[in-house]
Amino acid sequence: MIRRPTLAVVAEAAGVSLKTASRVLNREPNVAAATRERVLDAATSLGFRRNAVAADLARGGFSRLVGFITGDLANEFYSALASGIERELREHGLQLLTASSDEDPEREGSLTGELLERRVGALIVTPAGADHSALRAEIAAGLTVVVVDRPAAGIDVDTVVIDNRGGTRAAVGHLLAHGHRRIAFVGDEPHLWTYQERSAEFLDVMRDAGVPDAERWLRSGAHDAAAARELVAELFAAPEPPTAVLAANNRATVGTLQALRDLPGGDGVAVVGFDDFELADLLGITVVAYDAVEMGRLAAELAVARSAEPDRAVELVVLPTRVLPRGSGERRPR
Amino acid sequence: MIRRPTLAVVAEAAGVSLKTASRVLNREPNVAAATRERVLDAATSLGFRRNAVAADLARGGFSRLVGFITGDLANEFYSALASGIERELREHGLQLLTASSDEDPEREGSLTGELLERRVGALIVTPAGADHSALRAEIAAGLTVVVVDRPAAGIDVDTVVIDNRGGTRAAVGHLLAHGHRRIAFVGDEPHLWTYQERSAEFLDVMRDAGVPDAERWLRSGAHDAAAARELVAELFAAPEPPTAVLAANNRATVGTLQALRDLPGGDGVAVVGFDDFELADLLGITVVAYDAVEMGRLAAELAVARSAEPDRAVELVVLPTRVLPRGSGERRPR
Repeated sequence: MIRRPTLAVVAEAAGVSLKTASRVLNREPNVAAATRERVLDAATSLGFRRNAVAADLARGGFSRLVGFITGDLANEFYSALASGIERELREHGLQLLTASSDEDPEREGSLTGELLERRVGALIVTPAGADHSALRAEIAAGLTVVVVDRPAAGIDVDTVVIDNRGGTRAAVGHLLAHGHRRIAFVGDEPHLWTYQERSAEFLDVMRDAGVPDAERWLRSGAHDAAAARELVAELFAAPEPPTAVLAANNRATVGTLQALRDLPGGDGVAVVGFDDFELADLLGITVVAYDAVEMGRLAAELAVARSAEPDRAVELVVLPTRVLPRGSGERRPR
Repeated sequence: MIRRPTLAVVAEAAGVSLKTASRVLNREPNVAAATRERVLDAATSLGFRRNAVAADLARGGFSRLVGFITGDLANEFYSALASGIERELREHGLQLLTASSDEDPEREGSLTGELLERRVGALIVTPAGADHSALRAEIAAGLTVVVVDRPAAGIDVDTVVIDNRGGTRAAVGHLLAHGHRRIAFVGDEPHLWTYQERSAEFLDVMRDAGVPDAERWLRSGAHDAAAARELVAELFAAPEPPTAVLAANNRATVGTLQALRDLPGGDGVAVVGFDDFELADLLGITVVAYDAVEMGRLAAELAVARSAEPDRAVELVVLPTRVLPRGSGERRPR
């Protein structure tokens, strides 16, 4: 729909050659100040915009834009990641463009294509898909790819994750130490790597503690608070309800708190949430915390380092987690 | 950094003409299936990517990407806006790319340039800048621009805002009706339009209620929770502290709650927050609510309508607000 003048029209209006007009608009040196002024005036009044993609390619293909493909824009965890990434990129004069895959592998693929076609300089991805080998040719051609929160399958790239198993072990151990045996695990979609790590560790720790049938209290599908709320309400409506809940992500925690508020005696149920959130402190919610902003910052740092030095060794960074006791996780079973 | 084969290399590898290769890669009809296959195979194995910008221009300049320039990625309000925009765009086969201005007019300008140079099909902006006349030439050339949350200055474009004055009037009226006179207003940065609307209405309503010196309790600069927390702590350390706080955005509300928790008797202070937030319900916080997701959806709907029909009349949509009483705003002064 956009009608734009070509470079030739701008050059003609400014009374200069095509080559001179091009040099001015690509910010190249060695053009007289008066000529530069004339070209810029013509370009502005005609509404000309240089084609940044063509210009980037002419300069060697490097773009100041970095693409971030995230799982869900409305989730506080991804916002924290994005702000960490953005802060670090800004230090290097780079700009972040964010797009959401909504945890859909197919959308992740098409977004990757859209961003690459627009020649972003690097891609940071929280992988929803199970296979990223389609990116192999791009990486071989020099594209920087960094994955964050979950590893990528089929490609060997810089990766930043947290210690999901360690965090889960600490959380379940915390509840066991406070006398709980009937502990529920309310987690995200089963195809997500973080769910798989956390749920497997939950079952391991429970079995080691002499609770071999903990699958009874294992639930998945809590990708938003409403789904978690329903899952928790069902858990407590069944015979032998749990006395404690490990809510395995921040959405699950909110849904768990909503369900327990509506349940008689719900305020006596112990809760530990995976992921800290802004109001957890005010609400007295014990959580498994880690630094999500730092996680984003590290991913951006790796993207910058890789772009500068494509042959450096691939890095895997694992961030630590810790349990922050705030009251809800220290309740004893009744 | 990215080394890519040209279209000519792909054509040669596939044993077809440049024109045929171009038609296949631009998804044009009338190419034999076997030929199409051969070109796609060559393109894939060589790591070729068509230049989407050039292709868009060849098809008439329409891009499937819509840019959203937002104030702060880490703020729940902007996340809600973005998810509403994204949901609506997806219905139309369009994809959202989000970038943050961090409420900085200069960054807003450079981001606008970056996105336009990459030929986004439309721009949705929450304006931080005071002057958008630089976009006039682009709009004249056919670019769709929609602003959301705040109006733009210097251009006449489709706009979606909420009834800031009505919401403020209702909130202050609610506190006055519960017996308060010493009401504090804790707001965002003074250069933001929403701050100006809300603070002006606050002073108007207070003056009409016989409190002409309400400036004493008016504070600005609460762009994040930490700043709000300090402002509120100072307000309550001064002589004649307020008995109620109108926290004029969701960041200010969180900071207010944190400050009051640390204050002896702070749990007796009435609080009304502008902007609903997910856990306000669990915390019992009275808020001025409106539908931020719908606000985003409407902005996207206007962008789609404008792209389809550039000459339609410019629209201003004002969404209603309402006070949701949940306990914190119904406390009486002590």
